[in-house]
Amino acid sequence: MESIDYNEADYSSGCAVPSKVNKKVKPDRTIVNIGDISFGTSDIVIIAGPCAVESSRQLIETAGFVRKAGANILRGGAFKPRSSPYSFQGLGEEGLKILSEARHQTGLPFVTEVMDTRQVELVSQYADMLQVGSRNMQNFVLLKEVGMQKKPVLLKRGMMATIEEFLLAAEYILNQGNDQVVLCERGIRTFETTTRNTLDLSAVPVLKHLSHLPVIVDPSHGTGHRWLVPTMALAAIAAGADGLIIEVHYNPEEALCDGHQSINPEEFSALITDLDKIAQAVDRKIVKPQPSAK
Amino acid sequence: MESIDYNEADYSSGCAVPSKVNKKVKPDRTIVNIGDISFGTSDIVIIAGPCAVESSRQLIETAGFVRKAGANILRGGAFKPRSSPYSFQGLGEEGLKILSEARHQTGLPFVTEVMDTRQVELVSQYADMLQVGSRNMQNFVLLKEVGMQKKPVLLKRGMMATIEEFLLAAEYILNQGNDQVVLCERGIRTFETTTRNTLDLSAVPVLKHLSHLPVIVDPSHGTGHRWLVPTMALAAIAAGADGLIIEVHYNPEEALCDGHQSINPEEFSALITDLDKIAQAVDRKIVKPQPSAK
Amino acid sequence: MESIDYNEADYSSGCAVPSKVNKKVKPDRTIVNIGDISFGTSDIVIIAGPCAVESSRQLIETAGFVRKAGANILRGGAFKPRSSPYSFQGLGEEGLKILSEARHQTGLPFVTEVMDTRQVELVSQYADMLQVGSRNMQNFVLLKEVGMQKKPVLLKRGMMATIEEFLLAAEYILNQGNDQVVLCERGIRTFETTTRNTLDLSAVPVLKHLSHLPVIVDPSHGTGHRWLVPTMALAAIAAGADGLIIEVHYNPEEALCDGHQSINPEEFSALITDLDKIAQAVDRKIVKPQPSAK
Amino acid sequence: MESIDYNEADYSSGCAVPSKVNKKVKPDRTIVNIGDISFGTSDIVIIAGPCAVESSRQLIETAGFVRKAGANILRGGAFKPRSSPYSFQGLGEEGLKILSEARHQTGLPFVTEVMDTRQVELVSQYADMLQVGSRNMQNFVLLKEVGMQKKPVLLKRGMMATIEEFLLAAEYILNQGNDQVVLCERGIRTFETTTRNTLDLSAVPVLKHLSHLPVIVDPSHGTGHRWLVPTMALAAIAAGADGLIIEVHYNPEEALCDGHQSINPEEFSALITDLDKIAQAVDRKIVKPQPSAK
Repeated sequence: MESIDYNEADYSSGCAVPSKVNKKVKPDRTIVNIGDISFGTSDIVIIAGPCAVESSRQLIETAGFVRKAGANILRGGAFKPRSSPYSFQGLGEEGLKILSEARHQTGLPFVTEVMDTRQVELVSQYADMLQVGSRNMQNFVLLKEVGMQKKPVLLKRGMMATIEEFLLAAEYILNQGNDQVVLCERGIRTFETTTRNTLDLSAVPVLKHLSHLPVIVDPSHGTGHRWLVPTMALAAIAAGADGLIIEVHYNPEEALCDGHQSINPEEFSALITDLDKIAQAVDRKIVKPQPSAK
Repeated sequence: MESIDYNEADYSSGCAVPSKVNKKVKPDRTIVNIGDISFGTSDIVIIAGPCAVESSRQLIETAGFVRKAGANILRGGAFKPRSSPYSFQGLGEEGLKILSEARHQTGLPFVTEVMDTRQVELVSQYADMLQVGSRNMQNFVLLKEVGMQKKPVLLKRGMMATIEEFLLAAEYILNQGNDQVVLCERGIRTFETTTRNTLDLSAVPVLKHLSHLPVIVDPSHGTGHRWLVPTMALAAIAAGADGLIIEVHYNPEEALCDGHQSINPEEFSALITDLDKIAQAVDRKIVKPQPSAK
Repeated sequence: MESIDYNEADYSSGCAVPSKVNKKVKPDRTIVNIGDISFGTSDIVIIAGPCAVESSRQLIETAGFVRKAGANILRGGAFKPRSSPYSFQGLGEEGLKILSEARHQTGLPFVTEVMDTRQVELVSQYADMLQVGSRNMQNFVLLKEVGMQKKPVLLKRGMMATIEEFLLAAEYILNQGNDQVVLCERGIRTFETTTRNTLDLSAVPVLKHLSHLPVIVDPSHGTGHRWLVPTMALAAIAAGADGLIIEVHYNPEEALCDGHQSINPEEFSALITDLDKIAQAVDRKIVKPQPSAK
Repeated sequence: MESIDYNEADYSSGCAVPSKVNKKVKPDRTIVNIGDISFGTSDIVIIAGPCAVESSRQLIETAGFVRKAGANILRGGAFKPRSSPYSFQGLGEEGLKILSEARHQTGLPFVTEVMDTRQVELVSQYADMLQVGSRNMQNFVLLKEVGMQKKPVLLKRGMMATIEEFLLAAEYILNQGNDQVVLCERGIRTFETTTRNTLDLSAVPVLKHLSHLPVIVDPSHGTGHRWLVPTMALAAIAAGADGLIIEVHYNPEEALCDGHQSINPEEFSALITDLDKIAQAVDRKIVKPQPSAK
């Protein structure tokens, strides 16, 4: 017996939307702020960086590159959820320190994943934004815990999650008092095997129709192939995404994680130029960090 | 024991590509021509019209509207594949005659579906382009039959078909001597129910990477919701599509078929304006029919 | 606008059931007869034979083996639907003649696939039962054509068809006056790749709950692996199936089609022994052909 | 860059199997013991009880019923993972105390879900077996934590996890030193909506072929409909399952959770009788608790 307390439900698209994330209840779009960066305005926010923090040199060089090319926020995993226990599991707190150093040197805030309720406080001490990964989208105790923090949250859609379940996961966070949530479409699992996942770009207009929360897209996990990332990044902005999160590695062939879907700094730089044109075609813009920033 | 005679196979994306559709075998992109309309160039080709031909008045009025707004080709079903035997099955040959009359009055060529090997000759006598629908994508005898015609073919991806199966279906047509094939992504079936299908836009760059055939997108069937059609049409062009096929009805609420996913003439007209901006952002263009044409 | 004329609809399982296949409209179970063989009684009907008819010797030897082991009906493809145009397409009418000769020598009736409306009469002249394959489950003109014959039909579920679509496909046949339809679950397409398809055994009790038509299971296509066939055949009978269709080849390694999912005669014979025990545990029985039969 | 350290890999079914769960590395089947109950022998182990612990009376009455009918282990959720934050979240530690009281009164050991790394020690103090639920199958920190306990673990397959991912999740537990893991197939998410999930019974023989761990089936979540539970329970045993976990509620209509898929005590009792026949047909047996037990 489910007793969902929806203030408003929208069945027009076959989906019941819980109250706190519901655009009918709160028609104004939520703006999620990190310093002077805003998700949910006409600005397109670009998050970029490697899958995993591997070393101080790797991260800081990459951070410098992506900042120069136009990224607004740095990404990098310190705690890595890996399908196999024998895969690289991340540098842990050491990774958080390297991320902080990269922020210090480039001025870029960073987002990093938190996997364990016991790590939430630690990660919050370092990070500017907490990521809840796809495999933890229905880790309800983790959702509650990040909901109790004062940090913005990047919530990735589960690879098996319906739109309704995705919004209910966000509701768990808002229900604890934290409304600074950015939703991220990152591909769903289907029968198609040519791509790693099937990037569900129609989720972008659907989510923006049903909810007031900002929506970004991850074309790296969404496709799993480096050569598909730029094209699908353009398509995501045309579909109305408020931003992108893109894996960039200075040497994808040697990446400890997800090298096959990481683009290199030159490709990233070319992509930003193309994105700018598409953004303008839909009356939006990429806002590059000021060159005067440290 | 499969004995596929691939001249070249491309495993880079986990997909074996048969020889006649394979871009490695024939690197030049195939141009599919219908009069002065060309699929596979920098032009974006727009196909529009109702799901089904319902009456002479309905079709001819709609044809006039979509031509004026900028459509290049008219669509309309005379023979309709319907899940239920009790749903409207189309007007049959009478529908083909109405489509021909609309072409006569507006100058727009038309594409219409053929469902039965026994109808292929009849439909070929009327239509400018033969459509093989999603449910018939692996109707191999039908593929062979349209492959023996001298008409361009619009081949829609099966809702359950992998990229590899889609290309093998096209190979059946080319293998009979007809290389005038346009591929159409129209949404795949997944667990998500908010949308009718999941529009797999990454199929566009994947297909254009593996094959020399033009690729268009159907955002109407791909989403199943009128309000999603314009956004996903924009995203399709950003993803590199060579054209679009869009359901337009002058009164969607009263359509005998697929009214919930049909846009009206005003929405279609506004969409063309927006598409033009996106097309330019990716160095392509919409070519509207000349006003001087009848 | 769908205007489905349901006399009765059953929403208890989220599925609308059309009238002619609906158990609420006709509570008595339909019995489908081929000579003295009956689908839909307490008897379990076993269909066995090779994927494709390859030669007279191959088919007739196999027919003898499977008859002796306990098969009631012979299967074998003369017209083969193949994903690739370069795969073996079947022997055509020659295959039908070989099937007839095998029937003459063993007394086993046979079922074979029909793919083209133009072949329906021809195939009907030879076969005891017409198979509509998975890829043609929504080939509506073919469904109508077999509905006009006086032959029993084996309708296989589309690999991505819902239960509702499957029942609507059967309704097309009944709506033409032919109620001798046996439904066949043969695996659906999912994200799982360990098995060729995911055999949806819960479809068996669901279909028998919603419809009065007999239901059988194809564990060969449903799993795609020879070693899984016996186990899933047992499970199918426990789930309430009225029969099985199993690929048997006297030399699976050399089969021109589907050898990896074909069992050999010894495995088939052992399976029948095990099936008999499961059948008895659910108060049913395997009825082997009389040894005195030719 | 994945660097999976497989001692042995089995590609025969397209699946790489990690070393500690791999049957080629350790051919003997693992026996998981809880008192005198053994998973992985010829005995079929029956776990039964309500979705959630709702009250002392509800649980203890149900425990008495299912024990008498033949259940070996009691199930009941104290911490409940719910899609919506507004659904009943379980009684927490109070639920664990009620479960312990039921064990005291009936002699049945119990399994209950643990959702949070911070709860693992607490739950371990009460429970006889720790359940990791479907939504946490890739909660890797939780897997590691239960791997460090001395308690048997019931690991449910993620609703969109491949066989390979499922085995890798189990490997996380074994890799921490705990090899007392029982795998549970509970339905996967597909396009089919008639059933809540698609129960993938072929996973049973596949898992038993690839791994030495015991495998059980959950027909309640696997189907989502009370009337399908008994049939699919029979099919699961025919498919080779080592046990079943079944939701039983003394008044399903009033259950706080999953009432639509819970059977009542009478249905459960009748099911055990039928299961016994199927078990014997595959040379196995149901071992009911001794009536002399408290």
